[in-house]
Amino acid sequence: MPDVSRRSATAPASPIRRLYPLAEEAKRRGKKVYHLNIGQPDIPTPEEYLQGIRGADVEVLAYSPSQGLPEAIEAFRAYYAEWGIELAPDELIVTAGGSEAVLFAFQVVCDPGDQVLVPEPFYPNYNGFSHLAGVELVPITTTREEGFHLPPRQEIARLITPRTKGILFSNPGNPTGVVYREEELELLAELALRHDLFLIADEVYREFVYEGVHRSVLSMPELRGHAIMVDSISKRLSACGARIGAFASRNPEVLAAARRCAMARLSPPTLEQLGLAAFMAHPRHRDVMLGMVEEYRRRREVLSEQLSHIPGVLFHKPEGAFYMMLGLPVDDAEAFVRWMLTDFPGEETVMLAPGEGFYKTRGLGADEARIAYVLKEQDLVRACQLLKEGLELYQEVAPRAQV
Amino acid sequence: MPDVSRRSATAPASPIRRLYPLAEEAKRRGKKVYHLNIGQPDIPTPEEYLQGIRGADVEVLAYSPSQGLPEAIEAFRAYYAEWGIELAPDELIVTAGGSEAVLFAFQVVCDPGDQVLVPEPFYPNYNGFSHLAGVELVPITTTREEGFHLPPRQEIARLITPRTKGILFSNPGNPTGVVYREEELELLAELALRHDLFLIADEVYREFVYEGVHRSVLSMPELRGHAIMVDSISKRLSACGARIGAFASRNPEVLAAARRCAMARLSPPTLEQLGLAAFMAHPRHRDVMLGMVEEYRRRREVLSEQLSHIPGVLFHKPEGAFYMMLGLPVDDAEAFVRWMLTDFPGEETVMLAPGEGFYKTRGLGADEARIAYVLKEQDLVRACQLLKEGLELYQEVAPRAQV
Repeated sequence: MPDVSRRSATAPASPIRRLYPLAEEAKRRGKKVYHLNIGQPDIPTPEEYLQGIRGADVEVLAYSPSQGLPEAIEAFRAYYAEWGIELAPDELIVTAGGSEAVLFAFQVVCDPGDQVLVPEPFYPNYNGFSHLAGVELVPITTTREEGFHLPPRQEIARLITPRTKGILFSNPGNPTGVVYREEELELLAELALRHDLFLIADEVYREFVYEGVHRSVLSMPELRGHAIMVDSISKRLSACGARIGAFASRNPEVLAAARRCAMARLSPPTLEQLGLAAFMAHPRHRDVMLGMVEEYRRRREVLSEQLSHIPGVLFHKPEGAFYMMLGLPVDDAEAFVRWMLTDFPGEETVMLAPGEGFYKTRGLGADEARIAYVLKEQDLVRACQLLKEGLELYQEVAPRAQV
Repeated sequence: MPDVSRRSATAPASPIRRLYPLAEEAKRRGKKVYHLNIGQPDIPTPEEYLQGIRGADVEVLAYSPSQGLPEAIEAFRAYYAEWGIELAPDELIVTAGGSEAVLFAFQVVCDPGDQVLVPEPFYPNYNGFSHLAGVELVPITTTREEGFHLPPRQEIARLITPRTKGILFSNPGNPTGVVYREEELELLAELALRHDLFLIADEVYREFVYEGVHRSVLSMPELRGHAIMVDSISKRLSACGARIGAFASRNPEVLAAARRCAMARLSPPTLEQLGLAAFMAHPRHRDVMLGMVEEYRRRREVLSEQLSHIPGVLFHKPEGAFYMMLGLPVDDAEAFVRWMLTDFPGEETVMLAPGEGFYKTRGLGADEARIAYVLKEQDLVRACQLLKEGLELYQEVAPRAQV
């Protein structure tokens, strides 16, 4: 039999994948599992969006233009205009989710063998696309102690090599909840200008800011030629399965290159673009999104309060998004997550995402886990109780469990 | 400003793209343009499919598993079973259209610098994905005189190098309408086995066979380890904008590698998968698809009859799909297509796809054009009249037009 390619054989699988069978097995034993490990919100998708899909007047479900339907492009433009960002119609491309926008960014910015800096801990899916695109991610390590804000300039500058083509960052951050401050964005801008790098901002959590102010790379005039913005409606419309995102820039060469990438895959899904157009045309659309954000703001408060009562658990209260990196009082967070699924007694348990998968630097994150606060308040409270009980019991039995 | 990557700057744009502004300009002048140049059918998407989307009971429009929703996997399995192909649930992956399945195939089969053989003329979108994946396409030239069937064994075998990893072919063929004969598939199978190559069959036109019998690579037991099948519902459900396709194989390593590619992009669109499940559960689903095929069969007859009355136009009556490569009595088919859009007098004109874009070998296809018979009969008749008039007039004025 022929061998599969090295790139596909070595493509990184999500580390959490190998824990799923344990969660499934626990459920088969009748256990209720609180999933704090995934970024799939439980909030209903707004009726205004779903109705836009159901009511779409479509006789032939045709390809959309590869850049996106004009209606969807207008909807994105109207949305950005609400954030004070004016974009021309040809300055954005509708993508199959934020994922495809990230892929386009890697393809446009890098040839195989090039490097992109990225603050760690970072969203593990960056690994998959960068690997398949032959791009090396170089981590800028950030710490919980500093609230996952950027390290001093020289620590970033020393990572830049002739192969460095860009800096990718998510703002607000997954998994850290960091919202970058004005001076941090200015630092990144200065580095990008000085070293001729693209600045790729993943802004899918733009709406979810609880402290500080979000600033888009597209609102920084000096970055006109350097900025690429990656976006998605998945989170702000609780519509992850819609697969609608956007790639935006003000650099004509970047846009031309991204359009070529977009042509290859023909088009993003048509109906979900019409849904977005209908949603944005709805007078209540901003209220709907704000309602969503308020729900996460409350969850963040509840979660922070609950976690503060668990001895040994360390965290920085997230400024945005809906994630939190926890420091756990264990040596091996993955072993603890496993144990919670296999050995923790009782009818219920909780699943976290082990921290190592969010770091590129080997050894970091071993005692950490990510929480996504995508469950309703009462479930978050119960999940925290289970986590507390689990940690207490695990610390008693751990010497045995870890043998 | 930083430079964009070489790969994105040099990614092939669809050659037809540069003609679109001329078509738009003609329409602005009030001209009706019959588009025989695109593979976007005009046939309404079956209500049974659209109803499956509109009626989907979805509260949270969530990610589907990256392999696809279990319901959609079952729907594909049920569909293949109707063709006598039994697949296990983990032997297929739901993709964002056939396009993504082709991309996964390139990524799984090849590392950058590897080669894939492909009979030409071929579907131009193979160029985009192979380029972005760093894969070199090596053409196996076929001719209208031979009905675009494969050349003798030695002409294919001599193209195989140590860098050759696979043979990609569409069956039935876009743009040729070829349906490969049993002995051709056996020849490809023998070459794949002898040289340890993957055989990648793009079978999205499986339903559209008017002469001969379609045989899937998945029905050839000796190819168990070597066969990859690429599929899509775009054409058989006239649902190009749904972005639902499939990648299938019986080779566990291929499947594992493709699942890793699939994980990186999270999931295909959710609602369109539910639509497919509803469609396949509908008792009339096979009749609906057969009705679609009958419509194309009639169009093929009408088109062939009409074209046979145009002096100097050469074609092989297509055995499948809904395309036809025409030999035109002009030196430069692209110049003729342009002229039809800019200079042809009257209220109406016709747009074809110039032939060169379907060939990799330079110089081939200059006097050819592809027709997609995706218009209703009366429009096909009118388009052929216009083509006839256009060719007559062009042959008179061509010496001047081509100066």
